[in-house]
Amino acid sequence: MIVCRTIAELRTALIEGKSQLSGGNASVGLVPTMGYLHEGHASLMRKSAEENGLTVLSIFVNPLQFGPNEDFERYPRNEERDLALAEQNGIDIAFLPSVDVMYPTKPLTTVLVNQLTDRLCGASRPGHFDGVGTVVSKLFHLVQPDRAYFGMKDAQQVAVIQQMTDDLNFPVTIVPCPTLREPDGLALSSRNVYLTAEQRQQATVLSQSLDQAGEWVNEPEMNAEELVKRVTDKIQQAPLGEIDYVEWLRYPSLQPMDSTEPIRLESERYILALAVKFGSTRLIDNHLFGSSGGDYHV
Amino acid sequence: MIVCRTIAELRTALIEGKSQLSGGNASVGLVPTMGYLHEGHASLMRKSAEENGLTVLSIFVNPLQFGPNEDFERYPRNEERDLALAEQNGIDIAFLPSVDVMYPTKPLTTVLVNQLTDRLCGASRPGHFDGVGTVVSKLFHLVQPDRAYFGMKDAQQVAVIQQMTDDLNFPVTIVPCPTLREPDGLALSSRNVYLTAEQRQQATVLSQSLDQAGEWVNEPEMNAEELVKRVTDKIQQAPLGEIDYVEWLRYPSLQPMDSTEPIRLESERYILALAVKFGSTRLIDNHLFGSSGGDYHV
Repeated sequence: MIVCRTIAELRTALIEGKSQLSGGNASVGLVPTMGYLHEGHASLMRKSAEENGLTVLSIFVNPLQFGPNEDFERYPRNEERDLALAEQNGIDIAFLPSVDVMYPTKPLTTVLVNQLTDRLCGASRPGHFDGVGTVVSKLFHLVQPDRAYFGMKDAQQVAVIQQMTDDLNFPVTIVPCPTLREPDGLALSSRNVYLTAEQRQQATVLSQSLDQAGEWVNEPEMNAEELVKRVTDKIQQAPLGEIDYVEWLRYPSLQPMDSTEPIRLESERYILALAVKFGSTRLIDNHLFGSSGGDYHV
Repeated sequence: MIVCRTIAELRTALIEGKSQLSGGNASVGLVPTMGYLHEGHASLMRKSAEENGLTVLSIFVNPLQFGPNEDFERYPRNEERDLALAEQNGIDIAFLPSVDVMYPTKPLTTVLVNQLTDRLCGASRPGHFDGVGTVVSKLFHLVQPDRAYFGMKDAQQVAVIQQMTDDLNFPVTIVPCPTLREPDGLALSSRNVYLTAEQRQQATVLSQSLDQAGEWVNEPEMNAEELVKRVTDKIQQAPLGEIDYVEWLRYPSLQPMDSTEPIRLESERYILALAVKFGSTRLIDNHLFGSSGGDYHV
């Protein structure tokens, strides 16, 4: 595994790496991350290593996608452990740029995705997805991958990046990958490390309420409003949790449903998306429902 | 020359074209245009054909970069003549997509370049450069050129595209090319065809005032305010012209100078940029001054 910290090093490693690829599996995979890697990231790395001749992991905590009162400074970092995990999971090139390498001057250019960013984390974290779109565009141009791998825990991020890729004709296939979970259901996240023991215990309410919703949604006459109400009530049983949002939307358009409109699982696809704060730690989780909804939740 | 109208045709032509390139000159050049080609465009095509093994010309009148009251519908088109000129000037692949090919659904993604788009045509044509940044991003992704050629008549466009390319790490070298002119000095433009005989005659005031400014700027104690005043007075001697802007700015940052600040031709680079309407036809022209300013004006 080659570790690169500058764009020049990355270019050299890519040229050398690509020159060694045989015709049969000459594609390049990219796994963009913010580091502090867990088994969810490892599953993306393994999938890319299976599907591509060369896999690049990027680790970059992107300041552009953090708001002024968010956790950019304290976001957890552990480079040594990350590199060991990358090596064990088939990474060929690890790209760890500094902020100065990625933004040598103040960037004046922003890649904006409208509409899909109006709700959920886009509403709670203004500017977040502008930062995501911009840094993912940069990484796509620097690495020029054939495929890029993203976890479905960040389902809105996947929808935004797919839309951006289609709209701008990026020559990249976006590969969404299933959310990985702890044995008790908590979705894996680098931010779980912030939780106290008591918060950690109550945090299972997110996945439990998503599971419960999977039963409720099959009740006759169920609609979005009732479903959101029941999930909200269920989450509120965890006294340490403070709800940021509970939303039932179409996926991937992220458009809301009319409250009188029936849920059509046989023909439409929906997302139930949650964001809940435990102290200053904001956790998100989601489940897709309906037509092909199970694709990402094996 | 292969003519492509769909993305699938373009992909096939690029794969075939690239497969025939030898190692020595395996690069791809792109000349993005809105068609109604003139000798200025021809000079870009010839330069690209000289520098690259494969040259792609795109012709696309991009609705996103026209305002609601601008000339999108009546923008001049002559496909047959354009294709003949392209063939004569070394084009290998001509890409002529329809609006539906470029925007099969309403695009939600915009590539915004801030700051550089606040003045000049960015101020006069709100949203214009968002449309330019977006369509150029799409063309860069579709063609994946090594070099892209742009005329310096649109100097602000060159500055915006260079900034976008740097900020987003597009793997493309931007090649600015000199403005070509009629024998009497009028900058070549597809929009010149709109001018009446009398407007056409008076339109020489743009290049004449830029030439005159080239003398005034060498006077001791000359400053931006005085220079702009003299150029404005000179243009106002053409009774059919109506000034949109006359601006003296740093280039390529397009930042204004403090009015008391001396002009430093030996160390700084500046642009004198003009936009003047003759009836409903808006003409632009510019000249670069100062350090390396002559590069594009041979």
